[in-house]
Amino acid sequence: MRRLVVNGQVVQGLRTGGRSARIRESVLSAAFIELAESGYADLSVEAVASRAGVNKTTIYRRWQTLEDLLVDALTVGALEIPIPDTGSVEGDLLAVGHELAKLLNDGVGRQIATFVFTAGLRSSELREATRGYFEDQAVRAIPIIVRAIDRGELPTDCDASALLTTFRAPLFYQLVTTGDPIDVELIAQATRVALTAARAGLLAK
Amino acid sequence: MRRLVVNGQVVQGLRTGGRSARIRESVLSAAFIELAESGYADLSVEAVASRAGVNKTTIYRRWQTLEDLLVDALTVGALEIPIPDTGSVEGDLLAVGHELAKLLNDGVGRQIATFVFTAGLRSSELREATRGYFEDQAVRAIPIIVRAIDRGELPTDCDASALLTTFRAPLFYQLVTTGDPIDVELIAQATRVALTAARAGLLAK
Repeated sequence: MRRLVVNGQVVQGLRTGGRSARIRESVLSAAFIELAESGYADLSVEAVASRAGVNKTTIYRRWQTLEDLLVDALTVGALEIPIPDTGSVEGDLLAVGHELAKLLNDGVGRQIATFVFTAGLRSSELREATRGYFEDQAVRAIPIIVRAIDRGELPTDCDASALLTTFRAPLFYQLVTTGDPIDVELIAQATRVALTAARAGLLAK
Repeated sequence: MRRLVVNGQVVQGLRTGGRSARIRESVLSAAFIELAESGYADLSVEAVASRAGVNKTTIYRRWQTLEDLLVDALTVGALEIPIPDTGSVEGDLLAVGHELAKLLNDGVGRQIATFVFTAGLRSSELREATRGYFEDQAVRAIPIIVRAIDRGELPTDCDASALLTTFRAPLFYQLVTTGDPIDVELIAQATRVALTAARAGLLAK
């Protein structure tokens, strides 16, 4: 897996492989760069093909629509953030919030997020891809909660998924409502609210 | 103000007035019905004009794009929900959650919400309209918190906006991630988490 940097943002997880995988990677990379530069509304197969150095037919052979292409990008982990291990659950959640803020506050991450948020409303196929993406992201972060329970920082019956959802929800809510950047105060408040709820037994399995 | 019912859902707040206001109302109503029947992706000025019984030029004279038209729909309160007064803050939040679920779980409300969530990422003008909409909705619900403080149910320095945001965030998060319906368990958990956080002093001004 190599790290792809688009407009100063790390877009991770494009795995390398044979010729077919290389074409896929170059097309997905081109789509991200176009997203970052032109935005989702102006994204076109022509521009993606031109930037990737392939024919439009090469793209249409693999993906019927631009949306299929972007859904595919989700499955290769283009929006994955690193999962921290700082030694405390508070430190880990603050670090996750910081990474989410870096990803979502502007540029390609915000454009992809826009697409992801609405993909599920366009077709049931896209909805399943979106759901799979968010479920994968939730599963990746579960070790944060497992370690916290092991350290005695959280109740043993704490539901990792419920805690992570409670933590992430205010950050995504801000993104889709006011659109203001996710800042350190918001991340700190989301961390405190989620941990307080978990310790009060509100997020038990 | 009259109540407009689209596919069994009450879409409120279209104010009546002179001829110009009547045209505006019929176009906005037509847009909602088209949204409910065809979805946002397939919404067209042609279909809206035809349903409203006006020329396309009548629409383009008032709204440059379909998005401008939908932003305008926001300002007339098309997505407003009733603000309850049940006698307890818990009852009020549960009632608000129930109304949000009715509005967002399917049909026109979900289609409009999709638009609203992404509008802010398309242009700064649309972003301001979206922000204004969410701010208006937050202001409308403040009496719930003021009454709760008066009844001694919440700390006197509780920030109404922070509490309402904490409450709403998990509902909207579910809408944009898994897309699963907002159900009574989710609403009850969001209510408990928000009230616990407020009573722990985490949502103070």
